[in-house]
Amino acid sequence: MAEKITSREADYSQWYIDIITQAQLADYAPVKGCMVIRPRGYAIWEMMQRTLDDLFKREGVENCYFPTLIPYSFLQKESDHVEGFSPEVLTVTHSGGKELEEPLALRPTSETIIWHTFKKWVQSHRDLPLLINQWANVFRAEMRPRLFLRTVEFLWQEGHTAHAHATEAHNFAKRMIEVYREFVEETLAIPVIVGVKSESEKFPGAVHTFSIEAMMQDKKALQAGTSHDLGEKFGHAFEVQFQNHLGELSPVYASSWGVSTRLMGALIMTHSDDKGLVLPPKLAPTQVVIVPIFKASNKETVLHAAQLIASELKQQGLRVILDDKEGYTPGWKFAQWELVGVPVRIELGERDINSGTLIVSRRDSGIKDTIQRESVGTIVRDLLVDIQSNLFLLAKRRMDENTQEILDHDALIHYFEQDGGFALANWCGDALCEQQVKQQLKVTIRNLPFHLNEEVQGISGTCVVCGEQAKHRAIWAKSY
Amino acid sequence: MAEKITSREADYSQWYIDIITQAQLADYAPVKGCMVIRPRGYAIWEMMQRTLDDLFKREGVENCYFPTLIPYSFLQKESDHVEGFSPEVLTVTHSGGKELEEPLALRPTSETIIWHTFKKWVQSHRDLPLLINQWANVFRAEMRPRLFLRTVEFLWQEGHTAHAHATEAHNFAKRMIEVYREFVEETLAIPVIVGVKSESEKFPGAVHTFSIEAMMQDKKALQAGTSHDLGEKFGHAFEVQFQNHLGELSPVYASSWGVSTRLMGALIMTHSDDKGLVLPPKLAPTQVVIVPIFKASNKETVLHAAQLIASELKQQGLRVILDDKEGYTPGWKFAQWELVGVPVRIELGERDINSGTLIVSRRDSGIKDTIQRESVGTIVRDLLVDIQSNLFLLAKRRMDENTQEILDHDALIHYFEQDGGFALANWCGDALCEQQVKQQLKVTIRNLPFHLNEEVQGISGTCVVCGEQAKHRAIWAKSY
Repeated sequence: MAEKITSREADYSQWYIDIITQAQLADYAPVKGCMVIRPRGYAIWEMMQRTLDDLFKREGVENCYFPTLIPYSFLQKESDHVEGFSPEVLTVTHSGGKELEEPLALRPTSETIIWHTFKKWVQSHRDLPLLINQWANVFRAEMRPRLFLRTVEFLWQEGHTAHAHATEAHNFAKRMIEVYREFVEETLAIPVIVGVKSESEKFPGAVHTFSIEAMMQDKKALQAGTSHDLGEKFGHAFEVQFQNHLGELSPVYASSWGVSTRLMGALIMTHSDDKGLVLPPKLAPTQVVIVPIFKASNKETVLHAAQLIASELKQQGLRVILDDKEGYTPGWKFAQWELVGVPVRIELGERDINSGTLIVSRRDSGIKDTIQRESVGTIVRDLLVDIQSNLFLLAKRRMDENTQEILDHDALIHYFEQDGGFALANWCGDALCEQQVKQQLKVTIRNLPFHLNEEVQGISGTCVVCGEQAKHRAIWAKSY
Repeated sequence: MAEKITSREADYSQWYIDIITQAQLADYAPVKGCMVIRPRGYAIWEMMQRTLDDLFKREGVENCYFPTLIPYSFLQKESDHVEGFSPEVLTVTHSGGKELEEPLALRPTSETIIWHTFKKWVQSHRDLPLLINQWANVFRAEMRPRLFLRTVEFLWQEGHTAHAHATEAHNFAKRMIEVYREFVEETLAIPVIVGVKSESEKFPGAVHTFSIEAMMQDKKALQAGTSHDLGEKFGHAFEVQFQNHLGELSPVYASSWGVSTRLMGALIMTHSDDKGLVLPPKLAPTQVVIVPIFKASNKETVLHAAQLIASELKQQGLRVILDDKEGYTPGWKFAQWELVGVPVRIELGERDINSGTLIVSRRDSGIKDTIQRESVGTIVRDLLVDIQSNLFLLAKRRMDENTQEILDHDALIHYFEQDGGFALANWCGDALCEQQVKQQLKVTIRNLPFHLNEEVQGISGTCVVCGEQAKHRAIWAKSY
């Protein structure tokens, strides 16, 4: 871990990779585009899983597991879907040395196999709604892989629901994007913009795709989670119907929604700095590290005092490490724990013990304080709460400061040529205007924010591209 | 769920499948040999995962994630290993419609890719021991698939460790088989025999394979978990070495160990009966069901009383469902909850409320008792503890009663022709004797139990097959 991290200013892309490899979050795998998630990275992912899984259960969702192997023909049953995923599918052709009769796709997502199965499970209105989720690995051919952000195999959860009414499916999809917002803002401390995708950016086969969009430190957008109102397309393609209260056969409506290990990338690129990883306390596998400063003559005294603090904090339910390794200087240890993102560091030596004090530093601001030994429990707990909200506020301020209302095409070009962040601008709804901006500036509509569209009375003004009457307020940005 | 379950006596195999499908634990997938794990089954697997994961963490093991896709050439680096797994490997040949340069194996197990990666992670004695685990899906071509027991894709955990000394790896492998014994006996309530596999039955590439073997209700053995001392084979094949305290390059020693969704099969075949699933309370997603018995006139009174009981039990940390569905008779509800294996059922009607009593039934024995309303908390908690230990004792008694000491070849033949269970018999150590019994009787050595071999002073007597001097005491049985 002795190499230096490239600064963000010098090379943001390289900085991102340096953080991941030097903080030992992930490693390149022998197959191009695949990654190994190392224990330090997986521990964070595991914390995300637990929190999110509890939220799903709160919403009445149950976990299950569907096979990875999908008959290739299933993908072809829904035409938008096959068009969207075919170029990305990995295919199994042999088993035990023999060629298979039909090639099998490694799931790029599981709508098709799940709706094939729902046909067996859904017969009567009593079987609805059906709310399920799976934690799984998925596979997509990826031309420009990037650790956590775009990998050939990645880990995610995919929720799939079946409903008796179109509005119920639509509302459930909206409900789940709100659950993602709650999770990403409150646990990852990443502010997001919630909205609906434009037609050209939605999920293959969806009626509507809702997304949460975050801003990274380089001002690019990152799509952190999506939820899809699938209407009756999958129910229709897989011939799923149910008998309603009147005994009539009715169509079944679907939603699906997912977040992935991509969130690890969002987490890193939102909070970390040139010294290494910065973690919100709720997700930090270690929240507090205690570094005792001792020499041979006072080792026992100092370690004893440090152990007492460690057990006091652990009893409060905090995740604490006492770093009593020998043969390393305190300065070396400080740098290591900063690199891996432990939110709070406590230092103590003999002098501190004699004066009944401790030194406490926060990873987010770097601020050091001398505090009274007896109040360590309260102070550290308060600090962790404060760091969690400070990280959110810093990210929120950055997003707000780098979001600008843009009124016409020239201003839009100028904004992005000057390295702009999010442009808030009107759009007529025509895909050609979107396409033009994408080609010109590599900028896309991230979403049409709910709070600027659905919750307001009509849109006034003109499209930022063509100048025609606007129909939507949109967030435009470069993106990951 | 209205179909009848085939009785065990009529057809044990069909009974097993009926339990799984009617209790909605799993379903057949469109690809032959694959399965869908339904919410009722997955909830049990999730409970197993949480318990086992805590045990791993107690042993200092950290979770991580390695890719599913392994270059085919990796499997060929360790010769025993490739021989063992080649006939079972599924191969990806295409990605995004294009043929790959090198075919990729879907991991049948991950030793090869993990030791390829360990080469980067292990340099100095400071990097050892390395103790990691992953929860993952694996793939093996399977000619005779069977839900949970043998499926083309299954879920498991695989632990992999690297050590500086051969004895340390050996001892860690032994430690983990003991962790599995603890887990399977204490949580699944399944008694097991812990021992070492014979040469011909061990894992491809292992020096020693340790196993836990359980007896199902049809007296066949089921291997419930294995742990392998891999010696220096994988370290050698992947050129992993470390610098020891003296600065010299030394070989690295390995262990690996795993349990899978096969445990679901063991759980079903150990405890369940002709009425459906029987679950040990520690693994039951619902531990207590309350069935209120009411008519229109007293509905409110009865439901109110039932709700109070439900919240009292939930406050004690129990997993409780109040079944207040309308339009079903109590008898129909009883049968449903028996089918899905809820350990304790509480019934109450207006008469019970008036007399301050309740009816409590246990799923394991079927015994019903009238108890005082005010002691419901204590009684139900005690009952759950009692059911957990009773299920273990029943299974232990069955195993003991169906294990017999066998002294010579004729007796061995007779024992298995008479539908015997486990034969405890001496063995000379020659694979030919093993082979002969396998061909003749479809009986194999399950393992050489530790308590009959390592913990005793020498083996006396003669081999049950050839009559030569015995070297080991072995458990012989038909198996899944």
